[in-house]
Order: sequence, then C-alpha cells, then structure tokens
Amino acid sequence: MNYCSHCGASVERAVPDGDNRERYICRECGLIHYQNPKIVAGILPWRGDQILLCKRAIEPRRGLWTLPAGFMELGETTREAALRETWEEATAQVKHPELYLVFNIPHIDQVYMIFRGELENTDFAPGEESLETRLFSEADIPWRELAFSSIKASLTQYFTDRRDNHFPVHMEDLKR
Amino acid sequence: MNYCSHCGASVERAVPDGDNRERYICRECGLIHYQNPKIVAGILPWRGDQILLCKRAIEPRRGLWTLPAGFMELGETTREAALRETWEEATAQVKHPELYLVFNIPHIDQVYMIFRGELENTDFAPGEESLETRLFSEADIPWRELAFSSIKASLTQYFTDRRDNHFPVHMEDLKR
Repeated sequence: MNYCSHCGASVERAVPDGDNRERYICRECGLIHYQNPKIVAGILPWRGDQILLCKRAIEPRRGLWTLPAGFMELGETTREAALRETWEEATAQVKHPELYLVFNIPHIDQVYMIFRGELENTDFAPGEESLETRLFSEADIPWRELAFSSIKASLTQYFTDRRDNHFPVHMEDLKR
Repeated sequence: MNYCSHCGASVERAVPDGDNRERYICRECGLIHYQNPKIVAGILPWRGDQILLCKRAIEPRRGLWTLPAGFMELGETTREAALRETWEEATAQVKHPELYLVFNIPHIDQVYMIFRGELENTDFAPGEESLETRLFSEADIPWRELAFSSIKASLTQYFTDRRDNHFPVHMEDLKR
C-alpha cells in the first residue's frame, strides 16, 4: 500500500493515537487503512464412503487436488460462500452443510471454515477453476498431490471422525 | 474507494475477466482491489454462574454492555485475537477458551467467532475501551442495554445450553 484509496495522497506506517499497532495512515486526510485476515469457506462433500475433490486449473498449486473452497465475498454468510464455491468449482450441490473444521493459518492471514455436506447427486463436473472433479475413497486419496496443508488436515480429520461416526466441530492452528 | 492504493491512479467499478462480480479495478495498473468480510473474535468469560460483561467506552453503542470482542488482526489466530481483546477490554484472562458460537452477519460483512472460557480470577478491570467491567448472573443481565444483536444471541444460547451443561458449537445467521 502506497496511496490512500480515499483521497489519493501517500500513506505512511505509524501507530495511530490510542492504538498499539502500526497501520497505513494517509498523510493528507488521516484515514487509517486497517488490514484484516480473510475467510476461506469450503465444503467437504461426501457421498457414501467417498469424497469429492477438484484438481486445480489455476495458480497457486495448479494440477493439485483440493476441496471446493475460496474467499468469502461481501454480503454472504460463510455457508452461502461455501455452497457458492462448491457450485463454481465442481457444479456440485450438497444437502444441509454443517460447520465442521476451522483452521487458523496466521502466516498467510487466512481462516478456513470447512463445512461437511452430503452430495445431492453425482451430477458434478469441473467448473472454470478446475481441471477435473472426482470422487475418492480413503484408500485412493492422492495424499502427495494435495494443494494445501488445510486440505490434508481436513481429510485426515474426516477419516478419523468417520471411524466413530462422530463429527464435532474442530479448530486447529496450522502454523508454518 | 476512489484511488488505487498501489499506484495512486483512479479506480473504476467493473467485472474482471473470468469473474462474476463488480470490483474496484485500477484504470492505470489494472490491479483488482478485492474486499472481504472481517472476523470479530471474542470470549464469553464465565465464572461460577456469572458472565463478565464490559460497558463500552467508545462508539458505536457507547454506554451499552458487550462481551469482550473486536476485529481480528493480521498475524493472529482467532483464539489469540479473542484472548487479546479480552485482555484489552477487561484485563481479564480465561482458561482453555473453546470455540462456541459463530454468527454470520452479512449486512455488515462480519463473522463473529465467540469462544467460551472460564475466568482465571476476578482481577479484571476496565481497559481503555470500557467504562466498567462486571459479573452478571442470568437474572441480572441488562437485556435492554446490550450493545449488539450478536451479544444478545450469545447470552441467550449460553443460558439455554447451561441448563443441559452441553455446549456444542453453534452457527447462526443474524440477518437484518
């Protein structure tokens, strides 16, 4: 950040009065530009003993497998964001998605919120951001070709919880 | 947003290639300025049958009661943010905070993440953003002087769950 998005003057880094962190502050109009972590919302879509994964068509991690997930947009709930991403990436629909996993990833300023939901049907197909969409059994999960640590952690937790058929909400910190 | 924070040129509203939403896009350097919801992290601090509330010293809702909570900062986990806010607003510390409530509030682009934690001691006091900090039993909660709908919803859920001594994670949408 170099310029004030409100008035166009240059910004400086300084601690505002009454604050204890450096922020970008406009040298002209004084506006403080706060920056905050982003939410990535997604779904772990299951059908029988299988999980739907998407092969990424875009960077980062093009060609690797992921759960359908992406940045939450303004005006959405986390559940709406998760359902939208699942539709956009896999043209898939799930029943009754329930919050399941929350991952704090502070070194990239992201919080993942992953829901668990049963696929409505097998009418899924790659959206624009996917090369391929496919159901995987536990034995077939491409563990070495997963796109992100959050995806590996999601699948590991799911297969553990499935043994007890008990899926409480988990929160985990994924630090570097 | 009027100007590009990267190069200082003016921005326009347009749908980027491959996207389906209007964004602020720089007319000169082409940078797309995404905007996303923010996380408000807080704690519901309990001790025996009482809850710690803070009377707000700042706008909005100065003079009304709230749980200690505030915007999550870069570089934090949600739990760290909740503990920091509890320290800043009430110089209070809690043991083993566990995620308890998630509120989607899409009309203000916020997601509340409220933890539940037992107060370490009664050495709490108003921080700079509070006028007063006080323990309330259920019968004494100032229901008509609560600062936000999320605070009322948090306390209502807590007192319901306390009857069964069972505190699963809840997600609720607070729409206008």
